[in-house]
Amino acid sequence: MKSYQKLEKRFGRLLALREAAGVLHWDASTMMPEGGSSAEARSEQLAALGTVCHDILEDSETSDLLDDAEGLNDLNIWQAANLREMRHMWVHATAVTSDLVEALSKASMRCETKWRSARAESDFNGIKPMLAEVLKLVKESAAAKSEALACSPYEALMDEYTPGLRQDIVDPIFSDIEAFLPDFLKAVLDKQAAAPQPIIPKGPFPEAQQRELGHLLMGTLGFDFSQGRLDISLHPFSGGTPDDLRITTRYDEEDFTSGLMGILHETGHALYEKNLPKDWRRQPVGEARGMDVHESQSLLIEMQACRSKEFLTYAAPLMKQAFKRDGPEWQVDNLYQIYTTVEPGLIRVDADEVTYPAHVILRYNIERALIADDMTLADLPDAWNDGMERLLGLTPPDHATGCMQDIHWFDGAWGYFPSYSLGAMTAAQFFDAALEANPDILLAIAQGNFTPLYSWLTENIHSQGSLLETPELIKRATGKELDAGIFKRHLETRYLT
Amino acid sequence: MKSYQKLEKRFGRLLALREAAGVLHWDASTMMPEGGSSAEARSEQLAALGTVCHDILEDSETSDLLDDAEGLNDLNIWQAANLREMRHMWVHATAVTSDLVEALSKASMRCETKWRSARAESDFNGIKPMLAEVLKLVKESAAAKSEALACSPYEALMDEYTPGLRQDIVDPIFSDIEAFLPDFLKAVLDKQAAAPQPIIPKGPFPEAQQRELGHLLMGTLGFDFSQGRLDISLHPFSGGTPDDLRITTRYDEEDFTSGLMGILHETGHALYEKNLPKDWRRQPVGEARGMDVHESQSLLIEMQACRSKEFLTYAAPLMKQAFKRDGPEWQVDNLYQIYTTVEPGLIRVDADEVTYPAHVILRYNIERALIADDMTLADLPDAWNDGMERLLGLTPPDHATGCMQDIHWFDGAWGYFPSYSLGAMTAAQFFDAALEANPDILLAIAQGNFTPLYSWLTENIHSQGSLLETPELIKRATGKELDAGIFKRHLETRYLT
Repeated sequence: MKSYQKLEKRFGRLLALREAAGVLHWDASTMMPEGGSSAEARSEQLAALGTVCHDILEDSETSDLLDDAEGLNDLNIWQAANLREMRHMWVHATAVTSDLVEALSKASMRCETKWRSARAESDFNGIKPMLAEVLKLVKESAAAKSEALACSPYEALMDEYTPGLRQDIVDPIFSDIEAFLPDFLKAVLDKQAAAPQPIIPKGPFPEAQQRELGHLLMGTLGFDFSQGRLDISLHPFSGGTPDDLRITTRYDEEDFTSGLMGILHETGHALYEKNLPKDWRRQPVGEARGMDVHESQSLLIEMQACRSKEFLTYAAPLMKQAFKRDGPEWQVDNLYQIYTTVEPGLIRVDADEVTYPAHVILRYNIERALIADDMTLADLPDAWNDGMERLLGLTPPDHATGCMQDIHWFDGAWGYFPSYSLGAMTAAQFFDAALEANPDILLAIAQGNFTPLYSWLTENIHSQGSLLETPELIKRATGKELDAGIFKRHLETRYLT
Repeated sequence: MKSYQKLEKRFGRLLALREAAGVLHWDASTMMPEGGSSAEARSEQLAALGTVCHDILEDSETSDLLDDAEGLNDLNIWQAANLREMRHMWVHATAVTSDLVEALSKASMRCETKWRSARAESDFNGIKPMLAEVLKLVKESAAAKSEALACSPYEALMDEYTPGLRQDIVDPIFSDIEAFLPDFLKAVLDKQAAAPQPIIPKGPFPEAQQRELGHLLMGTLGFDFSQGRLDISLHPFSGGTPDDLRITTRYDEEDFTSGLMGILHETGHALYEKNLPKDWRRQPVGEARGMDVHESQSLLIEMQACRSKEFLTYAAPLMKQAFKRDGPEWQVDNLYQIYTTVEPGLIRVDADEVTYPAHVILRYNIERALIADDMTLADLPDAWNDGMERLLGLTPPDHATGCMQDIHWFDGAWGYFPSYSLGAMTAAQFFDAALEANPDILLAIAQGNFTPLYSWLTENIHSQGSLLETPELIKRATGKELDAGIFKRHLETRYLT
């Protein structure tokens, strides 16, 4: 057991250092002054942390301890899973050379910085050389990892964000949705067009009132402000640690609706972290399962629970009170109509839950082709525009609202996109199973009581940490493998009945 | 040169990691929620950072590189000084075993936590066993370092905070002040008693107005809010990095005067950091010179510059404006009288500049005796009370306002106190030299122009980083060794003429 205990100590330190990096990221997005060289200093600090973390994994003693511990036969299931997750981290870290990691990190930082100005000018040709450099290094990394993980290069990229995710899981699901979407979308748009339009509440909605309402509803969900914070950042995110949850949002004083839903979305992420198994804190098996499951927890809260008529029944009077307003626009039915409006658009982050998968499938097809050399960067803008036309019937007027809109590719995060839509489908399946296990969940939500829902989530998802691999986690929690049919039924029920 | 370059890279990473720890400390004092286990998680993160920093110094390759680089004869003076500072950090880190470092860190954390409640109850006997454990480990550490540094154990402790500080520097200065103080203090108190009392401005002074005034005057001093922040914490401090200065304060709505001076004090610390040599950023030679010089920069700003009649001439109208007040209490002479009131008291952190050295000398004598085994902890309360009676004519009614008032000993920071008073004397000497070099400095301050003062400080102190050892820095900047006579003359001029 000695080797296993030593690994726990070693990985405990590694994860504490990653937590430190998390605080530095949060600070950079919320508190750090923007002038001078503060960003440069911060990236030096983060690079130093990244190096020492990498060194811990690359140390030959870590490798020896892993080999030795894998020969032990008296580990319990949590310890065995912990060891499996340690090996997974080790494989990702050691499959690539430090030089490649550094080169990719620097190329991504350069490209991302340039992208900010190039996007403003829709200048794809201006960013293409830097993007080509990033893509070249991503492909090198993918090739090296594909060997170590015994999977395709593209799968090796997805595996960083959602361990174990393979194309034979994604392809049939995305094909299914891709076939389903055009007719379904048309039917929803026809139905919406035939109905009276919702009344949009008129601003301004002062930031302080929005924040107060956000705090109130976060509390309803179970967020404890003695163990967490809500701050402002340009791009909302959920950070911090299970004992110190840090979520962020941004406020639009003309429209409170999307900011509020953003807060509830991030609260979903945060409460997943909060409920992870405390006995395995700062151990790989005690961490969240992967980006798809993480996204399932935020989307379950946002899309399944909080855009429901039940939640809006509870929230509508609180909204009126927070903004000191009244009138027909604050009726539950009207608010529900606003929160379930479907409208094809060019921008992924503004998309509703019906059209969102189209955005993801477009990116999935393109990045897979680029990694597999079935396409070159020169073809990217046309491929993007063709795909948008085919999937949503829209043509971007420029690259800023087209293939340059997302930071991911320019920042080196290839293989990330699928987790968004897999998360949405997993959310639908988890929520469906939760309601089956306890039909009172929605009734309780209508009374502002999230305890029944969180009991089920904590028991079946959160408290499991990374004990199970994702397909097994889904199967044990819901009785079946990931099934796009449940997501489709959710859409049909919400948008066509 | 190769060994030297490798050391620069290694220490660059080390100092980046220490900066990361600094961000975590700042966050813990200003932003971190107080509930749950956030503090415990933070100390795990800081412990992990401490361990990897220690590992970098203890690594045998670091030792080999230092040995090799010390044989080079083509280093320039900055490189040679950098190497000297690297060796100094190395000696402190490697003189003690990791086990001792960890034991001391844990004992200090336990003792400090217990001290918070024990102090509230004035319970010296309750804290004594834990304090004894801390003292035992501090003595072990001091003994080990005294050998490596070829100095006395107590000097080895001082050396951590103010490198190179030895008793033959401190003793004559403190003896001089100790002999000077009683008669001087009596004369000042007599003079004050004979004069009309100052009129104290009446509160409340809303926090927002105090903050605005603080921001305004920080800006006057040269603080750039695009590269720094002012926040609230229980114990004010100056943190962050040269590119990202983070100072804190606390506000008392009944009395704005001490909070405002606290902000200016911390601004003095921050602007020292800001003006350190950019070419040596994240190298030991580019760091601040030591705690005594750091304190000289905050005290020069607070005591020498900002409690001057010239500064108050500039600030008085801004105070009136900030608080929307008027009346005789806002006259410069009245404000000057408030800001130069002398009153012997029990609490060091509330002391004026005349009585402050008495507090420090008391602690210096006691901690030196305890480290040298000339005294035991059982004698501490009596030694304290006797010293207070002798130095300031006061007897603490309890230990909370007596020997338990400061966190330092309970937190393991032995040998720190002298730097406060050495800083005050160094500040007087620097300011005196600056005025001699440029007699217009005070005139400019009266117009809210700190540029002449900061030109001198930047050139003679800040831009030097740790190029020179402290005695040499003082000598080059002022033409002579540290001279308590200048501090005494400052007190005589301000308080008796």
